[in-house]
Amino acid sequence: MTAEILSVGTELLLGNIVNTDARDLSLALSGLGIDVHWHSVVGDNPARLRQALAVAAGRADLIVTTGGLGPTCDDLTKQTVAEFFGKPLYFDARAESELRAFFAGRSMTENNLVQCALPEGCTPFYNTCGTAPGCGFETADGHTVVILPGPPKEMNAMLRSAALDYLRARAGGCIRSHNIMTFGRGESAIEARLRDRMNALRNPTLAPYAKEGEVRLRLTAKAETPEQAEALMAPILAELREALGDIVYGVDVESLEATVLALLGRRGETLAAAESCTGGLLAKRLTDLPGASRVFRGAVTVYTNPVKEWLGVDGETLARCGAVSREVAAQLARCVREKLGADWGLGVTGLAGPEGDGVHEVGTVFVGLASAERTWVRALRLGARSDRSRVRTLAANHALDMLRRALTGLAVELA
Amino acid sequence: MTAEILSVGTELLLGNIVNTDARDLSLALSGLGIDVHWHSVVGDNPARLRQALAVAAGRADLIVTTGGLGPTCDDLTKQTVAEFFGKPLYFDARAESELRAFFAGRSMTENNLVQCALPEGCTPFYNTCGTAPGCGFETADGHTVVILPGPPKEMNAMLRSAALDYLRARAGGCIRSHNIMTFGRGESAIEARLRDRMNALRNPTLAPYAKEGEVRLRLTAKAETPEQAEALMAPILAELREALGDIVYGVDVESLEATVLALLGRRGETLAAAESCTGGLLAKRLTDLPGASRVFRGAVTVYTNPVKEWLGVDGETLARCGAVSREVAAQLARCVREKLGADWGLGVTGLAGPEGDGVHEVGTVFVGLASAERTWVRALRLGARSDRSRVRTLAANHALDMLRRALTGLAVELA
Repeated sequence: MTAEILSVGTELLLGNIVNTDARDLSLALSGLGIDVHWHSVVGDNPARLRQALAVAAGRADLIVTTGGLGPTCDDLTKQTVAEFFGKPLYFDARAESELRAFFAGRSMTENNLVQCALPEGCTPFYNTCGTAPGCGFETADGHTVVILPGPPKEMNAMLRSAALDYLRARAGGCIRSHNIMTFGRGESAIEARLRDRMNALRNPTLAPYAKEGEVRLRLTAKAETPEQAEALMAPILAELREALGDIVYGVDVESLEATVLALLGRRGETLAAAESCTGGLLAKRLTDLPGASRVFRGAVTVYTNPVKEWLGVDGETLARCGAVSREVAAQLARCVREKLGADWGLGVTGLAGPEGDGVHEVGTVFVGLASAERTWVRALRLGARSDRSRVRTLAANHALDMLRRALTGLAVELA
Repeated sequence: MTAEILSVGTELLLGNIVNTDARDLSLALSGLGIDVHWHSVVGDNPARLRQALAVAAGRADLIVTTGGLGPTCDDLTKQTVAEFFGKPLYFDARAESELRAFFAGRSMTENNLVQCALPEGCTPFYNTCGTAPGCGFETADGHTVVILPGPPKEMNAMLRSAALDYLRARAGGCIRSHNIMTFGRGESAIEARLRDRMNALRNPTLAPYAKEGEVRLRLTAKAETPEQAEALMAPILAELREALGDIVYGVDVESLEATVLALLGRRGETLAAAESCTGGLLAKRLTDLPGASRVFRGAVTVYTNPVKEWLGVDGETLARCGAVSREVAAQLARCVREKLGADWGLGVTGLAGPEGDGVHEVGTVFVGLASAERTWVRALRLGARSDRSRVRTLAANHALDMLRRALTGLAVELA
């Protein structure tokens, strides 16, 4: 089965947004063993969309569209696709009731109702976090068509809740993957170490993905049954864990923060954080996860020296060592742990840039971790070449990695 | 002049990377008044690339390719494009000397030299930060073809150093845009109000884009000169500001948080925040912006009741009204303002879900704003259908909007 992803939206052609939907769909379809041979993007223009559909139908078995499902007069994907494949539209009653529930307590303009029109005979995909439903259908000439909304959050939610199942049933065979999550070594270093092994693997295959200081290794097997796929992967997974050692923070876990929250939860321990250069990012990432309040007591964004002192950092130390220092990172971790009554305290201070402070190189960061018994500090140079956002993300990653390592009995400070 | 951006690279189709080249090129081409009507992506496969070139040549005047220029056997773009348009390749001596300079002091494998082959009669674009040169040429049948490397840094550098000049000489005319940023009304409501006006507009055009509770209206004019484009937009811009009223928080500004930081900076005033359900998101968004420390003193993520009490919230109020209440939102705003020594305090408390608390509907949020003189509170129902992430984003948006309105003398509480 070969696929084309056809994204509809003038904002993509104007360069206002980047097409993350095509990337996310490509990853998901590859995971089902479907070969994506084409991406295309067309504006909110029915004539050009028809042209694009004709091209896609001539070269792909599966066409997945994104975008153009909203309530405005620009939004013409569903009508155009249905017409192109000769499917009349019907008014879906459940879509209407979901839409009215979405607007419960707020006024809904009538133009919203056009979103409830769907091609006859389709499998509707209701929208769990927006208004426009999507759908999947088979065409008279043997194509499979899947229509998804454009906003990345809605597209991804609909993919997970409904479209993947619809596609899996049509893809045949079975594909299973495991994600080996690592932090602490770069993609090229991991790739150099594993290159020969990766190139020799046919089934399962192994591919590395870099993401802001983390590297995810995706192991994927194709087989008749899930059990056969798992059996193909088990020995390789064990071999990779052995080869990579303690930079692996989990397999099939969501993120460093999810790993840390789970470890704390299992021990019944709690965490607090004091953030200077990360400015709330660490707290935000921890509280992105439902149930964080069971182990995360809170945090203080200590964005100015008086606020650092208010939390308990010693004014003399601030004056002597400066806010960006090993000593202040340690004190932040200890003070926030004590003041917020947590078992563990994290303290982050550094220079995220782009402006310098005349003393430190941009990217200089100190991360402190305090338990009842002791305090650890990592001194980091996150690179003058990293931008502000990357320095902040890496600093938060290091903080989480330190706690992960302390909670699992590994060395916390960098070698 | 209409354009197609044709990106070549299997890694795009596998979802390993997102196509930022297409976004960056789209922005640059729009700025030259070139209409980008299509993006397409094809893998490192000469047969499918030929197919894609035939489709592109049939519908666009200008074809810009990215990717597939490197030294490996996968890299077939230049050869395939030159052959498709009947251009023999020649060996470019300057490309070779630049390549040898790039490798100065390091060993260069011979396969690198294939990169120096260029289509006869082209304008070469030498690579200032990588190895593969690009080029522009005119075809016998009147197309303009531009070939650029795939790595985003190289593509953008070559665009600025050479390709934009090449294209500008062929484009003529100019495009200018303004972004009208609004918060407080949904996309469908704004569209319902402006639909007739939008449909009647030809030049400039007006298009709405929704993004997590915000709506951006993009006004775009095409003219001979920037001045003429601005003159076409000025009356419409004034009309839209009038029609939309105080939900417009800025024109050509980056975000609500940037607007609020700028307003505070102009007044020399400072801000602090106490966040329960947003858990650091508000602080994170404010400190995403360089220079935030000039007006943002800090924040406390009060993720548990003891931490709320530590900040100064009255235990009796917490017990009587519950943490998710109008009273606690007001106290959070007042306490954090006072404790962190800021002119303005924001307090956010609510239920982001997905778990309920047995009392409130998920999405119930109270946002408090305190100045020296008074306190305002917004009681929000952000929708049982919104997911955790959306509830948190909207809650932070409301907090920023309250402060924006207080700072500009508008009513703060919801009508």
